[in-house]
Amino acid sequence: MKENRICRLFGIRYPIIQAGMVWCSGWKLAAAVSAKGGLGIIGAGSMYPEVLRHHIKSLKAATDKPFAVNVPLLYPDIEQHMAVIEEEGVPIVFTSAGNPASWTSWLKERGIIVVHVVPNVKLALKCEQRGVDAVVCEGFEAGGHNGKDEITSMCLIPQVADALQIPVIAAGGIGDGRAIAAALALGADGVQIGSRFAATAESSAHPNFKKSILEADDSATVLCMKNVVPVRLIKNEFYKKISEAETRCASPDEIRAILGKRRAKAGIFEGDLTEGELEIGQISGLIQDIPTAAELFDRLLESYQNTVAGLPDRL
Amino acid sequence: MKENRICRLFGIRYPIIQAGMVWCSGWKLAAAVSAKGGLGIIGAGSMYPEVLRHHIKSLKAATDKPFAVNVPLLYPDIEQHMAVIEEEGVPIVFTSAGNPASWTSWLKERGIIVVHVVPNVKLALKCEQRGVDAVVCEGFEAGGHNGKDEITSMCLIPQVADALQIPVIAAGGIGDGRAIAAALALGADGVQIGSRFAATAESSAHPNFKKSILEADDSATVLCMKNVVPVRLIKNEFYKKISEAETRCASPDEIRAILGKRRAKAGIFEGDLTEGELEIGQISGLIQDIPTAAELFDRLLESYQNTVAGLPDRL
Repeated sequence: MKENRICRLFGIRYPIIQAGMVWCSGWKLAAAVSAKGGLGIIGAGSMYPEVLRHHIKSLKAATDKPFAVNVPLLYPDIEQHMAVIEEEGVPIVFTSAGNPASWTSWLKERGIIVVHVVPNVKLALKCEQRGVDAVVCEGFEAGGHNGKDEITSMCLIPQVADALQIPVIAAGGIGDGRAIAAALALGADGVQIGSRFAATAESSAHPNFKKSILEADDSATVLCMKNVVPVRLIKNEFYKKISEAETRCASPDEIRAILGKRRAKAGIFEGDLTEGELEIGQISGLIQDIPTAAELFDRLLESYQNTVAGLPDRL
Repeated sequence: MKENRICRLFGIRYPIIQAGMVWCSGWKLAAAVSAKGGLGIIGAGSMYPEVLRHHIKSLKAATDKPFAVNVPLLYPDIEQHMAVIEEEGVPIVFTSAGNPASWTSWLKERGIIVVHVVPNVKLALKCEQRGVDAVVCEGFEAGGHNGKDEITSMCLIPQVADALQIPVIAAGGIGDGRAIAAALALGADGVQIGSRFAATAESSAHPNFKKSILEADDSATVLCMKNVVPVRLIKNEFYKKISEAETRCASPDEIRAILGKRRAKAGIFEGDLTEGELEIGQISGLIQDIPTAAELFDRLLESYQNTVAGLPDRL
């Protein structure tokens, strides 16, 4: 895919990006994906600045291939994170959960490629105007934090692709090569895959959390806390408390009090399936095993190829 | 596509089905689609039994190609509708909004092909067990009435395709040939297209309603009234009343009182964009013109072909 715009932009072989995910995507997962010719991403959202530095250094020791760091822009230690990114020579930064205007110029001035995550066409256009190099358009089905517009990948990808000149990466609902083919058909230049990589051997998630992904069916997740911080998660006991509060129109403050702190860490990293916040995408229902990242990567390539070979040239 | 299972099941040339839609899909639209080699559907949900008979007779006078009638199973005049369907020799019936067990045997005994609309894998499996010939899996992005599980087309299509032996028709978010290719890549045998056909010359919707589809952007619709009757519609003044009531946790009875009667007719057929219920899909943001059904059909075929031709054989 020499002519692929995402491959050219990032200097990678395959337009497959492993999403930055809190408590899942440390250096081991990102290095394994980058070594295979995709783009591995370290998720800085769950790391203190010096932990992030350790992960970047470990990744660079494991592979010399391109990689990226994902930085949620609402993170409190954002300046320190950005300083670590500059000092460690991170070539690509994915920013999310914030305004693309706030850090794009700073990063670009340092020669860093900038990608921003968007949930709608309006923000995608704003990214392009602000000089972002590519966007990830993230559909309603994606796990974790999400937008309020509830636009699905099937609707979002073609509309963002039509509106922008810069490359478009599709995210949300992509669990196998069939969905990669679908995303490219809809106009994406590449794909970002989260949940499927969360359930790999190199993912730093707790075994309990990985098991909960395998056990999830098509209806297992829901986008909730829309008035506080919209997030897609598995409907566990913690969710039931949130749902009960939402059903009786509890105030945002009360929802925040129920949410409290450290729930994502408790659920994803420590394996508390009852009280933890189990952030994962709707495509979990399709995920049935825990391969290595390399095995999964090969499977994605093969399944893409089989899918395209099976499509009729004309109807 | 001689080997396509949907084409073989229905006896049609192209696996493109025009959705049955209240106040949009009378005999003119369905006949135009069937004449082009797709499957046109008369939407019985907005018709009295004798009106339905008139539409079936008119369609049969216009084309001898296969066609179908869509019957929401919760409709009050259901027995009379089914009697008309039998008397007029309708070859294919799409049932929706109800239990597939209730009418499948009756229809099958009369030699009628039965398709049921499903929002999740569980109901899809139940349909297969009950002897339904094919399912329409309808994603969260689809317009009008919808399921409560909020499963998007990207996630629903592959999971239903994996679970069933019978053919699967994808619906929700399909507005051009790119999305047809995506749906087939995800495992669908064919597609059902609603919103895009609602904005054609032959659609019986009011010009005001068609104009509101053209003006809609990616964020213009929302799935609301989830505790009463989940429906995706354009966020107009009527919706704002519903939303305000939902925000203060109004009871289902109060929501029903605000909804009242005849809102879909007022909005879609009479063109009241303020107080009407403007049922349409999220893909409206992509729709920019009002072609004839035949023009649109040719465009879908060409755009599918261009899309598949543009997909790399391997990544």
